[in-house]
Amino acid sequence: MVLTSERLRHPRLFDKIVTADKAAELIQDGMTVGVSGFTPSGYPKAVTMALARAVKAGKKCRIAIWSGASVGPEIEEELASVGAVSRRAPYYAASNRHMRNGINQGEICYTDVHLSHLAQQIDYGFLGKLDMAIVEAVAITPEGDLILGPGVGNTPMFVKHAEKIIVEVNIAQPLELEGMHDIYVLPKPQHRREIPIYNACDRIGGPYVKCGVDRITCIVESDIPDKVRDLVQPDELSEKIAGNLIEFLEYEQKAGRIPAEMLPIQSGVGSIANAVLAGLAKSKWENLEMYSEILQDSVFNLIEAGKVTCASGCAFTPSPSVMKKFRSDPKLYRQSIVLRPLDISNHPEVIRRLGVIALNTPMEFDIYGHANSTHVIGTHMMNGIGGSGDYMRNGYMTIFTTESIAKGGAISRIVPMVSHADHTEHDAMVFITEWGVADVRGLCPRERARLIINNCAHPDYRPLLLDYFASAERKYGGHTPHDMDRALSFHSNFIHQGTMKI
Amino acid sequence: MVLTSERLRHPRLFDKIVTADKAAELIQDGMTVGVSGFTPSGYPKAVTMALARAVKAGKKCRIAIWSGASVGPEIEEELASVGAVSRRAPYYAASNRHMRNGINQGEICYTDVHLSHLAQQIDYGFLGKLDMAIVEAVAITPEGDLILGPGVGNTPMFVKHAEKIIVEVNIAQPLELEGMHDIYVLPKPQHRREIPIYNACDRIGGPYVKCGVDRITCIVESDIPDKVRDLVQPDELSEKIAGNLIEFLEYEQKAGRIPAEMLPIQSGVGSIANAVLAGLAKSKWENLEMYSEILQDSVFNLIEAGKVTCASGCAFTPSPSVMKKFRSDPKLYRQSIVLRPLDISNHPEVIRRLGVIALNTPMEFDIYGHANSTHVIGTHMMNGIGGSGDYMRNGYMTIFTTESIAKGGAISRIVPMVSHADHTEHDAMVFITEWGVADVRGLCPRERARLIINNCAHPDYRPLLLDYFASAERKYGGHTPHDMDRALSFHSNFIHQGTMKI
Repeated sequence: MVLTSERLRHPRLFDKIVTADKAAELIQDGMTVGVSGFTPSGYPKAVTMALARAVKAGKKCRIAIWSGASVGPEIEEELASVGAVSRRAPYYAASNRHMRNGINQGEICYTDVHLSHLAQQIDYGFLGKLDMAIVEAVAITPEGDLILGPGVGNTPMFVKHAEKIIVEVNIAQPLELEGMHDIYVLPKPQHRREIPIYNACDRIGGPYVKCGVDRITCIVESDIPDKVRDLVQPDELSEKIAGNLIEFLEYEQKAGRIPAEMLPIQSGVGSIANAVLAGLAKSKWENLEMYSEILQDSVFNLIEAGKVTCASGCAFTPSPSVMKKFRSDPKLYRQSIVLRPLDISNHPEVIRRLGVIALNTPMEFDIYGHANSTHVIGTHMMNGIGGSGDYMRNGYMTIFTTESIAKGGAISRIVPMVSHADHTEHDAMVFITEWGVADVRGLCPRERARLIINNCAHPDYRPLLLDYFASAERKYGGHTPHDMDRALSFHSNFIHQGTMKI
Repeated sequence: MVLTSERLRHPRLFDKIVTADKAAELIQDGMTVGVSGFTPSGYPKAVTMALARAVKAGKKCRIAIWSGASVGPEIEEELASVGAVSRRAPYYAASNRHMRNGINQGEICYTDVHLSHLAQQIDYGFLGKLDMAIVEAVAITPEGDLILGPGVGNTPMFVKHAEKIIVEVNIAQPLELEGMHDIYVLPKPQHRREIPIYNACDRIGGPYVKCGVDRITCIVESDIPDKVRDLVQPDELSEKIAGNLIEFLEYEQKAGRIPAEMLPIQSGVGSIANAVLAGLAKSKWENLEMYSEILQDSVFNLIEAGKVTCASGCAFTPSPSVMKKFRSDPKLYRQSIVLRPLDISNHPEVIRRLGVIALNTPMEFDIYGHANSTHVIGTHMMNGIGGSGDYMRNGYMTIFTTESIAKGGAISRIVPMVSHADHTEHDAMVFITEWGVADVRGLCPRERARLIINNCAHPDYRPLLLDYFASAERKYGGHTPHDMDRALSFHSNFIHQGTMKI
């Protein structure tokens, strides 16, 4: 593997090339390290693996890792499995077993942050000094600026603040990515102006992350592809939920509550999200726009089918086959996709201005409309809150979709009170399961409870939930009838008896 | 009482004058009625009292009431006490006993809404038709546009959508208010541009609510003053909390985490807020700016003392003595105060752009940082969430202040798990009580718990809270150690034994 002047566009850059092992030596115990990328897309791999090897061989080194979101196993797993991670922010995903165990055993101190918040908290100095940024780049410009891979995340802010910068130039990332990014770094208050995005794909910045040759500490060659996971294929249940959702959106549009030209859509990840996007492909809507966080294969399919004309996100995660498509016709995708920094893709200002329709999937929600996106039975972190709070608080219409039960019915996803609140009753407007739709706009808690139980809960759980509600109403009353002795009884039951259904 | 051409500036307006009783006849059973004003400031009085009389005399009439926030007793109490309120949104305050009872007994269906959300939900058609607006005005322009009193709230949106409009022209409101308002009505997506506020007191709209002579159904004369309550005087405890807060802000500024020119401040209401504002009067800061929801007497004092040069809000509530001051030098206050619609004073876009420092007081918060702003022991509504969510989610630095205990120690305001979540662990950065400061920025839940308990909880409750935390950690572990059997035990204890301290 030899980097050419196509990838390193200034002669001085070649002098900075070192091995991954050499670069990893720069990472010292106690450092805070920001890594590029967002989900398994555009994250550094060679240096973190080298660091993991060094730690395995005896190097004493525990670091704090900041990223865009969860990244690939070369970071989450390699470093967590050798105990090299002391702190983690702002997101992590359950699929990384060692990171998950470390967090849930209290060995890794994880801070779960609204994804639109991290960059500015760094910029404000709230989180301390950033010692190091490790950035995967497609290429480096003659000015020493960075052309990122398919995930932008918080990289521009890491590069702004890091004392040292290691760049992994990865020839496995296609050069055709150049020009897809729209890098815009917000100034701090009180020097901020508006973020001038008025349509989902407006470009407001430049294609590169400003860095400069001098600030690059060293460069590492890489050819390791992103570990993109295959999309979860929609099953019958997801398709039923997606069907309910699309029917609801059509109804709302007919009623005049969604404008004729449709509004930009944000969609989370997972099998329901994929079923929704597959459903959109078959819908009557044309010229759809997405203003979302992450763009997965299904968005490429919608672009290819001519259904989506514009998709904005902070990352895209093409599987190998979709990456091939991208390479065969980069122009089509480049004109339809804009990749932004995370604090712009998730910014309340833009989400509210554009009127984004927000679709997300929580782990559980309660009869009054609070939702838990993160914790299994209130204690164990599954996935971080991610951008769901950014979109659900600020969206035009905010919708939670989920199946009504889990673990073969041992868990009801609709409970009397959530065991962990990530979203409050003030945020979500509509709840959808395979059983139906609870549109709670303008309702008070008692009305919400009846609607959510009757329209969304699994029939096996409806009598239990109705009994809880009726008993709380009778015994304690109030604006939001609850029984403090029993509000978390579904969860207690599951812990002690293995099922919520007693 | 006779309205002159100073108040009604077009001859045709005089033809529209009717008695309050006549106007109240227009209000029919089942209607939705939007009322002007915000807190006891600028709300209609004559017509709602006439309606209450009519209902008392046998008229069958239950209506839904939308407002800016809680308004005066002429609406909240007069109508609720005769059973004339079926629904209420987006806010109400505990001081209105009949409204409170109606809501907590489930007779009045109350929807608690982020205050920045209501206007757009009406505009989007999510809440149904608005039959009637009752607007208190200082005067009506030759074009039939409305000069509001000291509370703007959601009035511009009510006037935009109401089928019929009753205007109460109140000669008790000073004409000097003309020119203080900055009325800006956001278009709907996808026709929105930025909200061009770059400094707290930038004016972006016009001084009047656009209406037009033809759309005014009738005019009612009024001379009933706003029922402004006296400010709660700071006590020793509030002063201690305010002292901790100001010391913290000074420290943060010295450390460079708050810029030298200081940032705009938002402050809630109540004795702690008043103590904070009194503390600012004695602080070293000069040329302070406020970007807040409501401006109380203390802000006037700060303006008079030259400490505050600019204050933006959606209402101001001068007590009679401060109103006298205002009348004696309206120019001073007019140049320093801007009164905006509620969806602008509380808009995430502006709050985040300006970098507002948000100061609010919850009813309780838990060891992991979730906060309850609304519900007594999880069931009974005390006050609505108001704008606290708008500011705490979007502020530059977000701070909750409260005393550590209530009811002589029977209630700890720091609990294992909040009985109702209005703000999640992802929102507040700093917690302050009379015992100290817990700065939880960048911390994970286990770290937060130790800091919040040790720095903020009352010493009597610390052992109980530490015991809960240690036991949950030991028995269940996880990212956020909790014991589902005991998480709400403080609240259960209070219900069954009258104290959380067992």
